[in-house]
Amino acid sequence: MALLMRTDSDRAPWWRDEVAKLLPDLDFRIYPETGRIEDIEYALVWRPPQGLLRSLPSLKAIFSLGAGVDHVFADPNLPEGVPVVRLIDVQLTRQMTEYAVWHVLRFHRNGPEYEAQQRQRVWREVALTQTVERRVGVMGLGEIGGAVARALVGFGFDVAGWSRGPKSIPGVASFAGREKLHDFLARSEIVVCVLPLTPDTTDILDARAFAAMPRGACVINIGRGPHLVESDLVAALDAGHVAGAALDVFRTEPLPQDSPLWSHPAVTLTPHIAGMIDPRSAVQQVVANIRRIRAGEKPLNIVDPRAGY
Amino acid sequence: MALLMRTDSDRAPWWRDEVAKLLPDLDFRIYPETGRIEDIEYALVWRPPQGLLRSLPSLKAIFSLGAGVDHVFADPNLPEGVPVVRLIDVQLTRQMTEYAVWHVLRFHRNGPEYEAQQRQRVWREVALTQTVERRVGVMGLGEIGGAVARALVGFGFDVAGWSRGPKSIPGVASFAGREKLHDFLARSEIVVCVLPLTPDTTDILDARAFAAMPRGACVINIGRGPHLVESDLVAALDAGHVAGAALDVFRTEPLPQDSPLWSHPAVTLTPHIAGMIDPRSAVQQVVANIRRIRAGEKPLNIVDPRAGY
Repeated sequence: MALLMRTDSDRAPWWRDEVAKLLPDLDFRIYPETGRIEDIEYALVWRPPQGLLRSLPSLKAIFSLGAGVDHVFADPNLPEGVPVVRLIDVQLTRQMTEYAVWHVLRFHRNGPEYEAQQRQRVWREVALTQTVERRVGVMGLGEIGGAVARALVGFGFDVAGWSRGPKSIPGVASFAGREKLHDFLARSEIVVCVLPLTPDTTDILDARAFAAMPRGACVINIGRGPHLVESDLVAALDAGHVAGAALDVFRTEPLPQDSPLWSHPAVTLTPHIAGMIDPRSAVQQVVANIRRIRAGEKPLNIVDPRAGY
Repeated sequence: MALLMRTDSDRAPWWRDEVAKLLPDLDFRIYPETGRIEDIEYALVWRPPQGLLRSLPSLKAIFSLGAGVDHVFADPNLPEGVPVVRLIDVQLTRQMTEYAVWHVLRFHRNGPEYEAQQRQRVWREVALTQTVERRVGVMGLGEIGGAVARALVGFGFDVAGWSRGPKSIPGVASFAGREKLHDFLARSEIVVCVLPLTPDTTDILDARAFAAMPRGACVINIGRGPHLVESDLVAALDAGHVAGAALDVFRTEPLPQDSPLWSHPAVTLTPHIAGMIDPRSAVQQVVANIRRIRAGEKPLNIVDPRAGY
């Protein structure tokens, strides 16, 4: 039996060595060197080429090399009945929370205004909104969004969350479903997007969403690039309706050199580094799930293919 | 009986009105209109002129209009036996914690590097130190420093604190006294100064301190301006030994227009806004302490004049 790994990174040989220590009998293959495809029971993938997974007749599980699985579901012809399994990484959750809190605090404490004042050598206090009166909204309340929301509650912010179904997190007002999206955005001065990318959430941060936000709102996107209609954001920033944005993900990555986001004075951007899967943790999870499958159990962290996360 | 208020701000009439609601029998006077000085039992001061407090023969308490009392002890001729009382404000503590966490996260997550890369349209991941391996040091573990240290422990940082005497805070390694300062600095990659200003802590962040820190360390000063020898910091930054600084307080405030700090690429500065006393909370504390004194009790939050905080 064999595992086929397909990734953009140069880490595949490291993975092969680590998996060999734990599962020495597993034949670890690196795409495009598939060998005899009938042997392949497990696929470990980041952005698999369309049709690859369906071409593997003995496949028992598809392991996503990430917390998000949109890169797998981008293939409309996935093999039926084969579970798609995602990674859950406490360090990834911690990193995403750090990034979100960093930028929420920066916007809350008027960081952009003070940065502009420093450039002009201006010493002037900017009016401060009390933390308990600052309304922060978190889009997505799963593993990561829930942790972000709880951290913000800990600072004393007035936190709401938006998700497909209602969620119960102490201190977080729950808004659920498309019909509540406008109300959620209208009460949120700082919006953090941590959604999974699905057909339902693609383009969710568009001109209508920005218009629903209060004037002067700030947007933080650590979900996926296609959540955000970048041209709509630039228009909302240029109109002064949205005051600032912190972006870690983009529709095209690396961000093209001619993107207006690079030099927009109200945009802070980073190269998709808000959260990075720890490969040591990822190896442990993949190996544990292969052992479960071999023992006749279901793997942990199976994605619901209808929900897409 | 009377209270004399002396402040730089234009809030004195607001204070008079608020105190009148709670203590209608108290004669509220605003410096320099002292009236008959024998009537004055309470002084409510920010940066009192030298000799003013000693000239008041009936004084029972000196209330500092701030959490720090260095502006009171700057007068070498304070009246003996009159307690100096400071303000403790949960909102101030929260604000200072927000500011510290914001800048610790920014340095921890390579914010300055990514800001520079954005200006040059460079898409490149900067190596990330795991949170549990990031050594943060908090100088001062009192009301505010203790809250800062606890918040950083909550994020999973490897936190140490330095204070005059040993302190026991879960998850925070305690370094106490001058003889441990070098060891504390040597293990701290991000240093947050929240010390009270006393003769012992003036100039504590000097060339020797920076030399003791590991190469690439970052410094956040939210204590008082005179903690930091600004020219030594600029030299350490220019030498590349200290990588960055976030400064909210300065030796001269407002910061002079010709200060090299304004335009130093490794310095982020704000105009003494990390924490602001909430005047509503401050009125309540001052009134409660006047009531205690009238009832023959000691006021709360008396400063130890030998320690200076």
